[in-house]
Amino acid sequence: MNAHDLNLFLDDAFGGGRPFLIEDVDDVRLIARVHADGVTLRPGATISGPTLMALADVAAYGQILAHIGPVALAVTSSLNIVFLRKAGRSDMVAEASFLKLGRKLAVVDVRIRSDGAADLVAQAVVTYAIPSAT
Amino acid sequence: MNAHDLNLFLDDAFGGGRPFLIEDVDDVRLIARVHADGVTLRPGATISGPTLMALADVAAYGQILAHIGPVALAVTSSLNIVFLRKAGRSDMVAEASFLKLGRKLAVVDVRIRSDGAADLVAQAVVTYAIPSAT
Amino acid sequence: MNAHDLNLFLDDAFGGGRPFLIEDVDDVRLIARVHADGVTLRPGATISGPTLMALADVAAYGQILAHIGPVALAVTSSLNIVFLRKAGRSDMVAEASFLKLGRKLAVVDVRIRSDGAADLVAQAVVTYAIPSAT
Amino acid sequence: MNAHDLNLFLDDAFGGGRPFLIEDVDDVRLIARVHADGVTLRPGATISGPTLMALADVAAYGQILAHIGPVALAVTSSLNIVFLRKAGRSDMVAEASFLKLGRKLAVVDVRIRSDGAADLVAQAVVTYAIPSAT
Repeated sequence: MNAHDLNLFLDDAFGGGRPFLIEDVDDVRLIARVHADGVTLRPGATISGPTLMALADVAAYGQILAHIGPVALAVTSSLNIVFLRKAGRSDMVAEASFLKLGRKLAVVDVRIRSDGAADLVAQAVVTYAIPSAT
Repeated sequence: MNAHDLNLFLDDAFGGGRPFLIEDVDDVRLIARVHADGVTLRPGATISGPTLMALADVAAYGQILAHIGPVALAVTSSLNIVFLRKAGRSDMVAEASFLKLGRKLAVVDVRIRSDGAADLVAQAVVTYAIPSAT
Repeated sequence: MNAHDLNLFLDDAFGGGRPFLIEDVDDVRLIARVHADGVTLRPGATISGPTLMALADVAAYGQILAHIGPVALAVTSSLNIVFLRKAGRSDMVAEASFLKLGRKLAVVDVRIRSDGAADLVAQAVVTYAIPSAT
Repeated sequence: MNAHDLNLFLDDAFGGGRPFLIEDVDDVRLIARVHADGVTLRPGATISGPTLMALADVAAYGQILAHIGPVALAVTSSLNIVFLRKAGRSDMVAEASFLKLGRKLAVVDVRIRSDGAADLVAQAVVTYAIPSAT
């Protein structure tokens, strides 16, 4: 699945109007974005922790779907996120790559930056359980 | 701060219309709830992972505010969540208690169950950085 | 398996001379201990982080074996530990209880205290994969 | 500090006879190794989880010391490790790089492989608290 297919699939599965967009995907990594003007900012005018968690989760999910196809019932089994720097109020861009893609389990590294910046705002390790093909 | 004060504070900080409610707080733990009919369900008709992450985060934040007062700028520094059972489509109820409440750092254990059930749907360890009083 | 059986099993599996002891186990939790005089202290004269990680891992493993029997090939699939207070140089005592005991996966909460103290030195969430019975 | 200095420092701080060696360090990352013949193997003849946790911890500590100098009292504040593939019985090689190097906190990504292999055996995120210079 390419970025266009992934966005259609996610809109279909979760409903439209969400602030997340899959921007690009290649053999190695996927890029996802959350639009700052599509989310409520938290006190201090920064994008909230839960918004970044949801971005990490959707980036990991997209990376898995891009490689195994449209398996709606893949489910998050754990997510560990560490917040490294203040998020600010710009768009946030996530890069997802595999630590492991197994038949039953995928483990994805996700790194989040402010749009155009080099430093990390957050890093997550997201584990998905992949249902058996039947 | 009691449950009523916490809900007012959170509505003020994040805006109203959110699906989370602080239900009760005592010396030891805080109870928070997410209303199933206030959130979009994910494929499989269950409450989504990011909704449970946001519930864990708000329960931890509420527990900290209940003990140190209204410090809007306390920020999540890490969140580790493990999903243990399918969430289902009922309300989810979170119980937050301290692993540590220090001056600079609070670490909160959050356990999430389907309303009325004994088994855990998810467990999280949430760390907040507390800004210095100045 | 009771505490005596577990110690015999662990000595057999990993070799004797280790500083860890399963002290007690009941329906709900297991207690394990590391002897301070059996380990090298780190700078600052405290028990090292890796020693506490190993204690958390063996306490979780013991808790699982106590409930499913002697399955040597159960393996750790993840361990998240947060250090909460300075360990000091006394014995460390770990209490392990289940967040989930499934057929394929067990998730164990482990809380570590200095012997006789109430405050937590560390808390861990340990996930084990349980091999299929064949 | 270069690899030679780091090994001297670690031997001095923790005592010699340990199975860990800092092999190389440059501006970006540090390489550490655990010798398979220096550790007790676990059932299944693989290097144990706690040995890999200790390797991740020492690699992260070495990476920090290489950049801030010999600060013995830097302490681990959390460690999250995920085990991805069976370790086998060869030497294990860890690569540590910064997610963040701040004044008070360093967050290090550690990736562990079997010597000479491309696939990851384990990945860890290790957070160290750095004491204030006084």
